[in-house]
Amino acid sequence: MFITFEGIDLSGKSTQIKLLEEYLKSKNKKVISVREPGGTVISEKIRDILLDKKNLHMEYVTEFLLFSASRYQLTNEIIIPKLKKKYFVLCDRYYDSSTAYQGFGGKTDLKSIYRVNKIATGKLVPDITFLINITAEEFVRRKKLINKDEDRIEQKDIAYYKKVIKGYLKISRNNKKRFVVIDGSKTIDEIHTDILKHLKKIKKV
Amino acid sequence: MFITFEGIDLSGKSTQIKLLEEYLKSKNKKVISVREPGGTVISEKIRDILLDKKNLHMEYVTEFLLFSASRYQLTNEIIIPKLKKKYFVLCDRYYDSSTAYQGFGGKTDLKSIYRVNKIATGKLVPDITFLINITAEEFVRRKKLINKDEDRIEQKDIAYYKKVIKGYLKISRNNKKRFVVIDGSKTIDEIHTDILKHLKKIKKV
Repeated sequence: MFITFEGIDLSGKSTQIKLLEEYLKSKNKKVISVREPGGTVISEKIRDILLDKKNLHMEYVTEFLLFSASRYQLTNEIIIPKLKKKYFVLCDRYYDSSTAYQGFGGKTDLKSIYRVNKIATGKLVPDITFLINITAEEFVRRKKLINKDEDRIEQKDIAYYKKVIKGYLKISRNNKKRFVVIDGSKTIDEIHTDILKHLKKIKKV
Repeated sequence: MFITFEGIDLSGKSTQIKLLEEYLKSKNKKVISVREPGGTVISEKIRDILLDKKNLHMEYVTEFLLFSASRYQLTNEIIIPKLKKKYFVLCDRYYDSSTAYQGFGGKTDLKSIYRVNKIATGKLVPDITFLINITAEEFVRRKKLINKDEDRIEQKDIAYYKKVIKGYLKISRNNKKRFVVIDGSKTIDEIHTDILKHLKKIKKV
């Protein structure tokens, strides 16, 4: 089963993936968690280019094609082989991230995005996608709290994040069967419970 | 004017680009030479991943998407701005390389290649493309002569190069108006003279 997690930075995706991974392991399921961009030797090298703060002149289409290259390698080297071995594959971001960030956020034209997404995934579609939705205001609040160093993509301004959030909600409406929108303002435990509830609707876990 | 050079490795492209650049400079033309993959800070980093001998598990589609990312950055950061300033831009490989290598050589499906090529170039098409054509046997002969360290792509076997050569000739037949096929078995000076002759047919240089 292929489960993806989407949402803007600081929405709490990684925490939820960790909790779900622990839960599934406690039920003796085979689980692997991967993250985008990255997850293979080659994809991690691509990640370094994408997140390097010095690469400020990177065009949105370049960014999109780099994510896509990393995605193809991850899909074919890890995700597909693990799915064949009946693993639960939990993926931190997948092609919906490109549609939201480089498409709705960065204005790369959506037709190009959809075409390359298909190529970069070999048409592999997640079984279920959890969109953990927070507002741009909540994003700013959390960012100030942690005050950590920003990577290249996180340095973009708040108007950009608003476009990404709007984009994500639009994608979720266009893919209602696969998408579950989770209210990211809830507590960590509440969100975990929500995720499990929805997962159990489609699979005995 | 946008001039690209195509052909398999060791066909003599770089030498010819250098000679043409010198000729155009002697005629007081503004010229810049660039190479693919590379030519910008970001593209050179992508080049490092592509040519790293340790990355042997790279999928053909990953390779193709990385070339495309590098190409988009080069096109938008260097080629288009220089063309606007009336430069002669000489480019060592462009999207025909992807069609020949990853498409005909690597079996990435051609429809995907054509679609991504358009995205990665913003539909910029060269004014003239010189294909310096050598046989696979000539390639092997030259390789033994120089006996240099091979990068990841050059390590592929001879059957692969035969497919690439065939692919290049097919591309040239499908783009007769733009392509000039040059016999790469001739001497360096003869090839330079051939190139100039064809160039002069379409532009006073």
